[in-house]
Amino acid sequence: MNGKRNDGRFGDRPKKKKTGRMILLFTDFGWAGPYVGQVKTILADVAPGYPVIDLMHDAPAFSPKPSSYLLAALTPWIPRQAVVLAVVDPGVGTARRGLVVRADQRWYVGPDNGLFDGVIRRAESAHPWEITLAPTTKARTFHGRDLFAPVAARIAFGASVPGDQLSESAVRRTDWPDDLGEIIYIDGYGNAMTGIRADSIDPALALSLDGRPLRCFGTFGEAEPGETFWYANSLVYRSTVMRQAEGLKRLPA
Amino acid sequence: MNGKRNDGRFGDRPKKKKTGRMILLFTDFGWAGPYVGQVKTILADVAPGYPVIDLMHDAPAFSPKPSSYLLAALTPWIPRQAVVLAVVDPGVGTARRGLVVRADQRWYVGPDNGLFDGVIRRAESAHPWEITLAPTTKARTFHGRDLFAPVAARIAFGASVPGDQLSESAVRRTDWPDDLGEIIYIDGYGNAMTGIRADSIDPALALSLDGRPLRCFGTFGEAEPGETFWYANSLVYRSTVMRQAEGLKRLPA
Amino acid sequence: MNGKRNDGRFGDRPKKKKTGRMILLFTDFGWAGPYVGQVKTILADVAPGYPVIDLMHDAPAFSPKPSSYLLAALTPWIPRQAVVLAVVDPGVGTARRGLVVRADQRWYVGPDNGLFDGVIRRAESAHPWEITLAPTTKARTFHGRDLFAPVAARIAFGASVPGDQLSESAVRRTDWPDDLGEIIYIDGYGNAMTGIRADSIDPALALSLDGRPLRCFGTFGEAEPGETFWYANSLVYRSTVMRQAEGLKRLPA
Repeated sequence: MNGKRNDGRFGDRPKKKKTGRMILLFTDFGWAGPYVGQVKTILADVAPGYPVIDLMHDAPAFSPKPSSYLLAALTPWIPRQAVVLAVVDPGVGTARRGLVVRADQRWYVGPDNGLFDGVIRRAESAHPWEITLAPTTKARTFHGRDLFAPVAARIAFGASVPGDQLSESAVRRTDWPDDLGEIIYIDGYGNAMTGIRADSIDPALALSLDGRPLRCFGTFGEAEPGETFWYANSLVYRSTVMRQAEGLKRLPA
Repeated sequence: MNGKRNDGRFGDRPKKKKTGRMILLFTDFGWAGPYVGQVKTILADVAPGYPVIDLMHDAPAFSPKPSSYLLAALTPWIPRQAVVLAVVDPGVGTARRGLVVRADQRWYVGPDNGLFDGVIRRAESAHPWEITLAPTTKARTFHGRDLFAPVAARIAFGASVPGDQLSESAVRRTDWPDDLGEIIYIDGYGNAMTGIRADSIDPALALSLDGRPLRCFGTFGEAEPGETFWYANSLVYRSTVMRQAEGLKRLPA
Repeated sequence: MNGKRNDGRFGDRPKKKKTGRMILLFTDFGWAGPYVGQVKTILADVAPGYPVIDLMHDAPAFSPKPSSYLLAALTPWIPRQAVVLAVVDPGVGTARRGLVVRADQRWYVGPDNGLFDGVIRRAESAHPWEITLAPTTKARTFHGRDLFAPVAARIAFGASVPGDQLSESAVRRTDWPDDLGEIIYIDGYGNAMTGIRADSIDPALALSLDGRPLRCFGTFGEAEPGETFWYANSLVYRSTVMRQAEGLKRLPA
């Protein structure tokens, strides 16, 4: 990650042979079926040698808005120069545009449906392009494989963006809030993640359950057994969780 | 993919350092347990540097016949020179042969149970070998790890095939049809994929439900809400799906 | 794997360009969410070029003890020089130590909670270190990403261990048995794996069901339809399974 996070104790880190550029996948495809595999086949064929990482494949299905806040939360953990291939795309096959976005030295490729709004909103600078490349097949239903993967692969190895520049305002969702007061993801441990940053001080975004405010704790042990509370998860969003009566439960996020 | 699918707009694609050869996994192992991971460990150990891609791990379980039609549908998306390690193998531990098949410049490694029949059926040329290598352990139950993975890895880096040539007819399933009028896969979105190619004109293979013929549409919006219809999926097979009443549903395949 | 398992028939195996070092992940994170993806992002960023393999992500959740026996069973299949990043860590955020263990030329990185006891118990030699590096963030809840991944990555490329040597006895669980008479994993096929090695001759570890001893078979066909029996799985542990009445079922492990 960036230099600040490393403590510099290792002087023997080797020079990278590559630029360090990697491709990360953020989709709602799930792990079943050939869909992720077909996307990766294209990436390995067009951009051999670049690592491809499954960041997550259970983004909120067909839901660009919560997915946008989730992707924004993951962004600080994505290395500069990485290419994020993001597909949450209920409008595939309609006239919605395909986008490439350059934001704070990271690249994003995917549909123009608000999915990148959270990233752009928090970036110091952002530059969008409309993809003008045609899909590689006539299938209207799998742009992840036929359009976004080829574009992401080419950007990974340094090709110019195959599209026309847009103004930032042309792709923004200005009616969306800075923090989203909804549950945007429930993980496998039962943690319910909101779109509210942990350090938000907006009093309207205090978390409550059945009208009763939730307490905030740093560790599970501080809560009463069975108590529902909130904490700052590892993505620095607010999560709510119930402390199990039977003992300490891990806080994975 | 092949040259026809690219539009040639990118003149700056770099030369590949490798041959572009990759290894694709097509199994019914599922994602649980150490089985896929052990296969990949062997591949990375024997053939370091070649990308390994999970094409799918939920092929029809213990069912070589529908798996064969599914693999055939995926083949056009598999680059030439790739090695496909395919394991749907209810007969492991019995006397069934292990096969290597070279078909239209792609390689296939797996059991001789019909799994490669669809690929061979549609190939311009196909050459099978019976694997004569012994498994690496005495375990009779995991040839994916102990036999097929080592063979696939060696083929990836260009070793000669460890086996004896067979005639094509020795491995064919001539009693299987060109198009299979069955549901061969139901994906995570509820699309039911048949083994019938979209452009089949065999009138006996028209799709019907409860005796009523299904209509064919190119997009979901053309169907009536709640109507079950069929469409040509992204693998160019016929899929049936019901249009949701609540709005447009994505067509992922 | 080691030289004994190969039969030497292939003289054309190329020299490896790398040391063959790879990173294997053994966790209870599951496949949902961004957790595995974030760990892999760190690994690809800090140690580019080393293959990362998902050995399994459904180790017994929050349960270091059965996980320890499972990891020990997988170890013979892990190449020498590999780095195993293992996280089953109910105590994350508490004062439990982080460990690096060198055992029989393999490396292990993860929490000090018994997870590596099985590996150390069966190793010819083992050397543990306490990790003294600080996590890369203040988040107390995701040491897999913030502490163990950076350490594993650095070990992969040959950095010195960032920690202080411990005595082997300081990390052992001497009250745990050599073979664990419990079900430690149930796989996707319904096989119930015990922590008892197949060749154990301890009569106290005979398998029974409802007080009746189970018979042992080498193949499913030898059992009566519907009979529950045990066999030596592909990890050379004892598994119990019921023979299906409808025919031969595969033995995947």
